[in-house]
Amino acid sequence: MAPGEKSGGRRGEFQLIAELFAPLARGATGAFGLKDDAATIDVAVDRELVATADALVESVHFLRSDPPASIAKKALRVNLSDLAAKGAEPEAYMLVLSLAPWIKDDWLTRFTGGLASDQSEFGITLIGGDTTATPGPLTIGVTAFGTVPRGHMLRRAGARPGDAVFVSGTIGDSGGGLAILHGDGNSLSSEMRDALVSRYRVPQPRTRLGPRLTHLATSALDVSDGLLADLNHIAEVSGTRIVVEGQQVPLSAPLRALWGSDVDAIVRAASSGDDYEIAFTAPWSEKGAINAAAQAAGVEVCEIGHVEEGEGVALLGLDGRPVTLGRLGFTHF
Amino acid sequence: MAPGEKSGGRRGEFQLIAELFAPLARGATGAFGLKDDAATIDVAVDRELVATADALVESVHFLRSDPPASIAKKALRVNLSDLAAKGAEPEAYMLVLSLAPWIKDDWLTRFTGGLASDQSEFGITLIGGDTTATPGPLTIGVTAFGTVPRGHMLRRAGARPGDAVFVSGTIGDSGGGLAILHGDGNSLSSEMRDALVSRYRVPQPRTRLGPRLTHLATSALDVSDGLLADLNHIAEVSGTRIVVEGQQVPLSAPLRALWGSDVDAIVRAASSGDDYEIAFTAPWSEKGAINAAAQAAGVEVCEIGHVEEGEGVALLGLDGRPVTLGRLGFTHF
Repeated sequence: MAPGEKSGGRRGEFQLIAELFAPLARGATGAFGLKDDAATIDVAVDRELVATADALVESVHFLRSDPPASIAKKALRVNLSDLAAKGAEPEAYMLVLSLAPWIKDDWLTRFTGGLASDQSEFGITLIGGDTTATPGPLTIGVTAFGTVPRGHMLRRAGARPGDAVFVSGTIGDSGGGLAILHGDGNSLSSEMRDALVSRYRVPQPRTRLGPRLTHLATSALDVSDGLLADLNHIAEVSGTRIVVEGQQVPLSAPLRALWGSDVDAIVRAASSGDDYEIAFTAPWSEKGAINAAAQAAGVEVCEIGHVEEGEGVALLGLDGRPVTLGRLGFTHF
Repeated sequence: MAPGEKSGGRRGEFQLIAELFAPLARGATGAFGLKDDAATIDVAVDRELVATADALVESVHFLRSDPPASIAKKALRVNLSDLAAKGAEPEAYMLVLSLAPWIKDDWLTRFTGGLASDQSEFGITLIGGDTTATPGPLTIGVTAFGTVPRGHMLRRAGARPGDAVFVSGTIGDSGGGLAILHGDGNSLSSEMRDALVSRYRVPQPRTRLGPRLTHLATSALDVSDGLLADLNHIAEVSGTRIVVEGQQVPLSAPLRALWGSDVDAIVRAASSGDDYEIAFTAPWSEKGAINAAAQAAGVEVCEIGHVEEGEGVALLGLDGRPVTLGRLGFTHF
């Protein structure tokens, strides 16, 4: 098929790039208007480039019936969340689209509209990528780039016995939203249901908080597999044990309406994943500075536990005794 | 499923990363042993980072029956080819795998074996990525990083009237290899058939040539859509016309045995794509330096035409008159 021709209600490859994607690359000199095979990325001398990649697959990470703009935002935001948790300021991204046969022009227009909206909100620009056809599910790969002060990327390794454990926002809302999409929560108000579903569909990456933690936190990651599973990642790589006080895990009002607030609800929330909050450790002495950073970023940060000698992660119930945990969170297969 | 558990003959996500992928990240300090959510990329002050992304989809870009190591190499090499054509020295890559249900441990071991082999050959290291499951076809996304002398990335834009047009290696072999896999060429010797099929399965990125052209070529790209289609990209972005002399297009002996060497064979070869050679333009005055660069890189470079005022691409037949061209090459949908 020649460039620009239409096939089954979808623009040709080159027309798609010129009309829908090139406008998203305006302002990035290294993107060359998406008219080249590669992009250049410039990094200031006192900063360091941070790169992260995450793919979303139809039926695995989103539903075909989800609004196209939401799918676009989710694809971008799961990567922005990784950058935020590493303390990085977002800069640019590359998009690799494998387009399923059901994708039409109208869908793509709404998808790129979602990208445009998030580019403005988060100060990130498209600089390149690849678009291909697939006979299978829509698959969206994003590689996102950010920068941190040289040598100060927040890592999973670094938690030290005596540190406090913190988490931003609330935990479990996304899992609750998915449960609602699967038919739960009919007794909740539509406002509460919408609040939870929107947390599942469109994560809120903590890009204003993360960069403020680069000189405060000893370790950090974004909560995607589930709070307990992700804290277990920190514990493992840091060679420490993490103890979480169940009653300190922040649950939103809609989630408490859906699942309650007993220990089962806390375990469920802390295992359900897709939260895209930042979990981190820091010395107790930094607590004032962390509260100030949270306030400046406009997000709540809760102290939920501590780091000690040992290994693994423990969740203390309301009686202060460890809860027996099964599956900690989500793995992809 | 807990980390490390097996499911249907495949390692769990974390075990897969630890056992098969982490060894590929050894030696890259910014990869943090693949135990973090992001990688850092360091670039020397006098150089510039070049990034490119390409995805391969089962049944679209490779066949399920292709050897796993070949699929791995092709996924890496199509990106290495982009870097080479931009004049970049390869440095690192990120891998985004969407694993189909039919992928088992043994397949993954052979796949990562192919990556390991190419990492040694091309001096590139895995620094991160993402692994997820898909109910659809195996999809492999690679984002590759290289560096060029600051400000010297070879671009598609830059061809000037009076420049000569060059191409490395031979053209059409990969298309011939695919034709053989579809049943053509039964009269050819098995050596000739294998030579063409291996060019389809495993491209030879010209990583030794590209970086030698950064101060010689005025424009460059790698031939993936088809020689004529790709030269048309250069013509379009450079605002010039490119004229190719058909009899100068380099065809290999096996391809001539398969398709002949008349004008139809030349058009077919120059439209079939997946060559992963470097096509570039340069002033006539640089011809000696280009020959020296080709010799140092150990690859043939042929002069195949010239750049003039105007637009589009023309192919001259053996009589020196323009051939009427239909479809110039491959588009993805």
